[in-house]
Amino acid sequence: MRYRVGILGSTGAVGQRFIQLLSSHPWFEITAISASERNVGKKYSEGAVWRLETPIPEEVTDLELVAPDPKKMDCDIVFSALPSDEAKKVEPLFAESGFVVASNASAYRMEDDIPLVIPEVNADHLGLIDIQRKKRKWDGFIVTNPNCSTIGLVITLKPLMQFGLHEVRVVTMQAVSGAGYEGVPSMAILDNIIPYIAKEEEKIETESKKLLGEFDGEKVKFAEIDILASCNRVPVIDGHLEAVFARMHENPTPEEVKKVFKDFRSIDTPSAPKHPIIVREEVDRPQTRLDRNAENGMSVTVGRVREGIRYICLSHNTIRGAAGASVLNAELMVKKGII
Amino acid sequence: MRYRVGILGSTGAVGQRFIQLLSSHPWFEITAISASERNVGKKYSEGAVWRLETPIPEEVTDLELVAPDPKKMDCDIVFSALPSDEAKKVEPLFAESGFVVASNASAYRMEDDIPLVIPEVNADHLGLIDIQRKKRKWDGFIVTNPNCSTIGLVITLKPLMQFGLHEVRVVTMQAVSGAGYEGVPSMAILDNIIPYIAKEEEKIETESKKLLGEFDGEKVKFAEIDILASCNRVPVIDGHLEAVFARMHENPTPEEVKKVFKDFRSIDTPSAPKHPIIVREEVDRPQTRLDRNAENGMSVTVGRVREGIRYICLSHNTIRGAAGASVLNAELMVKKGII
Amino acid sequence: MRYRVGILGSTGAVGQRFIQLLSSHPWFEITAISASERNVGKKYSEGAVWRLETPIPEEVTDLELVAPDPKKMDCDIVFSALPSDEAKKVEPLFAESGFVVASNASAYRMEDDIPLVIPEVNADHLGLIDIQRKKRKWDGFIVTNPNCSTIGLVITLKPLMQFGLHEVRVVTMQAVSGAGYEGVPSMAILDNIIPYIAKEEEKIETESKKLLGEFDGEKVKFAEIDILASCNRVPVIDGHLEAVFARMHENPTPEEVKKVFKDFRSIDTPSAPKHPIIVREEVDRPQTRLDRNAENGMSVTVGRVREGIRYICLSHNTIRGAAGASVLNAELMVKKGII
Amino acid sequence: MRYRVGILGSTGAVGQRFIQLLSSHPWFEITAISASERNVGKKYSEGAVWRLETPIPEEVTDLELVAPDPKKMDCDIVFSALPSDEAKKVEPLFAESGFVVASNASAYRMEDDIPLVIPEVNADHLGLIDIQRKKRKWDGFIVTNPNCSTIGLVITLKPLMQFGLHEVRVVTMQAVSGAGYEGVPSMAILDNIIPYIAKEEEKIETESKKLLGEFDGEKVKFAEIDILASCNRVPVIDGHLEAVFARMHENPTPEEVKKVFKDFRSIDTPSAPKHPIIVREEVDRPQTRLDRNAENGMSVTVGRVREGIRYICLSHNTIRGAAGASVLNAELMVKKGII
Repeated sequence: MRYRVGILGSTGAVGQRFIQLLSSHPWFEITAISASERNVGKKYSEGAVWRLETPIPEEVTDLELVAPDPKKMDCDIVFSALPSDEAKKVEPLFAESGFVVASNASAYRMEDDIPLVIPEVNADHLGLIDIQRKKRKWDGFIVTNPNCSTIGLVITLKPLMQFGLHEVRVVTMQAVSGAGYEGVPSMAILDNIIPYIAKEEEKIETESKKLLGEFDGEKVKFAEIDILASCNRVPVIDGHLEAVFARMHENPTPEEVKKVFKDFRSIDTPSAPKHPIIVREEVDRPQTRLDRNAENGMSVTVGRVREGIRYICLSHNTIRGAAGASVLNAELMVKKGII
Repeated sequence: MRYRVGILGSTGAVGQRFIQLLSSHPWFEITAISASERNVGKKYSEGAVWRLETPIPEEVTDLELVAPDPKKMDCDIVFSALPSDEAKKVEPLFAESGFVVASNASAYRMEDDIPLVIPEVNADHLGLIDIQRKKRKWDGFIVTNPNCSTIGLVITLKPLMQFGLHEVRVVTMQAVSGAGYEGVPSMAILDNIIPYIAKEEEKIETESKKLLGEFDGEKVKFAEIDILASCNRVPVIDGHLEAVFARMHENPTPEEVKKVFKDFRSIDTPSAPKHPIIVREEVDRPQTRLDRNAENGMSVTVGRVREGIRYICLSHNTIRGAAGASVLNAELMVKKGII
Repeated sequence: MRYRVGILGSTGAVGQRFIQLLSSHPWFEITAISASERNVGKKYSEGAVWRLETPIPEEVTDLELVAPDPKKMDCDIVFSALPSDEAKKVEPLFAESGFVVASNASAYRMEDDIPLVIPEVNADHLGLIDIQRKKRKWDGFIVTNPNCSTIGLVITLKPLMQFGLHEVRVVTMQAVSGAGYEGVPSMAILDNIIPYIAKEEEKIETESKKLLGEFDGEKVKFAEIDILASCNRVPVIDGHLEAVFARMHENPTPEEVKKVFKDFRSIDTPSAPKHPIIVREEVDRPQTRLDRNAENGMSVTVGRVREGIRYICLSHNTIRGAAGASVLNAELMVKKGII
Repeated sequence: MRYRVGILGSTGAVGQRFIQLLSSHPWFEITAISASERNVGKKYSEGAVWRLETPIPEEVTDLELVAPDPKKMDCDIVFSALPSDEAKKVEPLFAESGFVVASNASAYRMEDDIPLVIPEVNADHLGLIDIQRKKRKWDGFIVTNPNCSTIGLVITLKPLMQFGLHEVRVVTMQAVSGAGYEGVPSMAILDNIIPYIAKEEEKIETESKKLLGEFDGEKVKFAEIDILASCNRVPVIDGHLEAVFARMHENPTPEEVKKVFKDFRSIDTPSAPKHPIIVREEVDRPQTRLDRNAENGMSVTVGRVREGIRYICLSHNTIRGAAGASVLNAELMVKKGII
């Protein structure tokens, strides 16, 4: 028997990824999908302009789009692909009504009592759930995952913590899909680089410290790392590539760094990559188009680990960096018996 | 009366930029152009596959391509767009025979007695010319300009030296034209980022220290700056965009940094930009396609100067970063009476 | 003394081209610019996000944006870059109030009494102006230019009329700028071709017949040509490239066709290209990026004229195909004494 | 038990597709792979720079690269991904020595006694094999498949033959992978369209007539269709999109045309698509990136079937248009008992 899951904002770019990842999922079954008002009442195949390269999964083709309302969504878990301002209003209604909300939205990520989780990095932060429910008097709860440009970076920073990581400089080269289907006009990005993405640098700098922080049973104590980011939009469809400079008190060699990357452990659930971090030895990898789909887009690929320590990391922004991250959080909670 | 100039390697990507920049030049007249053996004897319009968007200048259309041989090149100054290994052999022959060699090649950049010059940055390094001629017993001499990814960066670092600049982290996003016409296959770069350019990081890290070093009348004492670079190839035609993190002992504010950028002075010759550094205040500038041609591709455009200090700089890699750099060096030498 | 001109819809993609082409124009002076309501009252530099690679012309930087209202626009001629539905309402108000309206909008192109003109092709169709004014009782009048994909094609078809042109098959490869700044999302077009542009094929098929038709003093008799078009959006910034198959009763040779292309005459006004049609003999030209700016983007470049007759033509869609077309119409009318 | 197969030219772009398609094939087992001299003796993973997005199949990783010599290739069938001039010399050596040669090279396609085959289109042309072996006194034989831009087109033309097809005008928009990995420099194609591909139009025009011709037991009588092509290179990685105008004596309606497209039959072998032609009803499909991988890149997707008859067809140029075509020919021969 599978858990019945719903998708909030199922017709957008991230919503379609949720559909794609959750169809034929061994633990989850899509039973409810929401859309904005003008599409409510339509079948999914009529309300959504499907833009992925794989066909619309049959199980949702005829499913009816409903309003993002706890009374209308017939399921146990909701995955949220809502824009931040809408998530802010809607997600608490679901948590209050007893739903598990696995959210990709940024609205509640930085709240004290709401877990911001990458399963391989800080699964123990789920301990905040009890505190959250008590404090907010909710039957359900909200669990969030980080921003698409934070997630690949932090997966690689986590194993560096053991060496006394204290300073990070990171420059991102981010795909257009990160801005949603209509986010980046082609006239803005063909033969061009845009060295600015609104609020992105702030998200990387704050979310990373929460993710790498310690949960003491009450709250998360932020990691003390000096992080500066510089974010760029580049003309690629999918995949965020990041150039990282990391300083550690113990000054590990590139070989030592590669070793801890390779040893980084999978959480061993259906969508979890066997190798959360793949280390490439070629001088010119990872490359965005060639490596973004590693382990179905769920692995982070690292390369060019050099003295400095400097390295390159790459992750798929709408899979590992968005829908896949929420799905993985839900799988973790099932595995841990929280759901 | 104009100086008679020749171009070594006149048919390649940088060679064509030399042709473009030197045609109708008020001080220089193209009188000799070299090509590789199979094109010697042809007219320029027959030996070169012209690939720039402006038409072939009339003054070279019928000029005959000759071998890169001092006896065949009828001129006073030669501009070198040769590949490094060829430059290594050919340029000394010209210097020995009394030519002024203004070279864009990397072969001699790091030699003790050969000036590596950006006119606005270290014009005084031209003092090495006397030392070079004495030591090598040459009638002529070689003057070089830095690599395309170094030049934009160093123009912005120079004014920061007054604040005690001691650490730089830079990530480049470099245009395909930097690798020459056939350098980057389209299959390698469409919908892709390649986080590696052979020898590029080393060039940035060493050339910068020489350029920012002090000439004491005998030799150049390298600047003591901790520089690390991470170089990437991106799918744009022209323009190298760089994300810079700079640490200075005096800790200037962004406003102070912008002021010294804006105050940075032109050398006031025909090809020199009025503003070597243009500071943009918009949150999303410079952008590669929109800003690479600022002041005919000779200005460096800077933006997003933030606490950190962090900023973005952009320069045209085959104009300011290659052919234009050599031309500017020649203009500087004319102005200073060295030629 | 220069004519005082206004631009309707001055802040959009085509509006910006009008600004660029009309600044420093020898016959015209920009004295009025309109924008949509939320920008009225602002200076141009504040109300427009300037996206061209040349800087905002100084003469408009501080000019105030006004409503598209005949009473607010202080000028003699208005150039219209309005979207079709807005043009439909606004342009007649200007014509009624005595303005000359040179419109790039599609709203009135196919009206019986409104000239649809390409100066080099059918200048005599301006004879419709008298009929228009009489019929509509307007003090001013409207003159239109064709759609961006029609114009390059028809300039090449006109000289073929003398050979008894009767059938045309054309496939277009159109730049993203043709859809306006936000018209084509980057996710839609990176690594992709879209074989559909709404209403484009119909425009080519109908406008061409009007343009190539005969004005008998009363009305335009449409040309009897069997035209079928297939329109595609391709990932280039500017420039519409078209592959044409043309059948003529007289069956001319490729050499004869090239001759009439080369002989096609300029109208000899400030913006008119010296060569309305440039014929390239290279086997692989015209190419979009290399040839779109020929004669400041006002020439049509033709190549690969082969048995068939088959050929390729290219024109700049926002210059020759939009703003430049309207400006040329206005210049023609000045030259003919109509204005 | 599986047939033992070899790949000639296994390290190039098409060679890698052969490796990808033949690994884990139910009927074939890769036992021999050839490369050019400098890579002979290396393992495949060392001699090939693997550029596909899926990993190198384990079964070839350690396989040794050998010379393209019948004595060195231990197998029954060879698939040829050789360049045309090399194929010309090498393929007959294999045929003579008793191998079945399934070739993607153009060298022998138009020879009278060599079958040029698309299984769904003209399987009966395999009758030429007997004639070939007799005439050339070969133990083995050569069977070829058409050029990448011909194949998608002809699959759609075949069902139109029943309506009396007599005239075709086709304009192609072809991916860069069609020219091989280094075939199209990025500087040539970024923000550009190149309206020329050497020999491509001739291939479409001649190969189509042979493929659609009738085999009378002795020779192929070419189809009498007036075909003109205009071929363009566009900035997409994979996928050839073609705009077709087709004239038929019986003048079918678009609905009739769509019906025969949909009814076109699969040959029902492991790599054969269930639907050789997929008909899309959306107004803007097929699109290159979204549809090129339909049925693992083996289906042709058709759309926009309009009066004219006009339509768009799309096929994956290195799968259905190259390696997959040869594999399908081999499967057909196995199924028919020829192998």
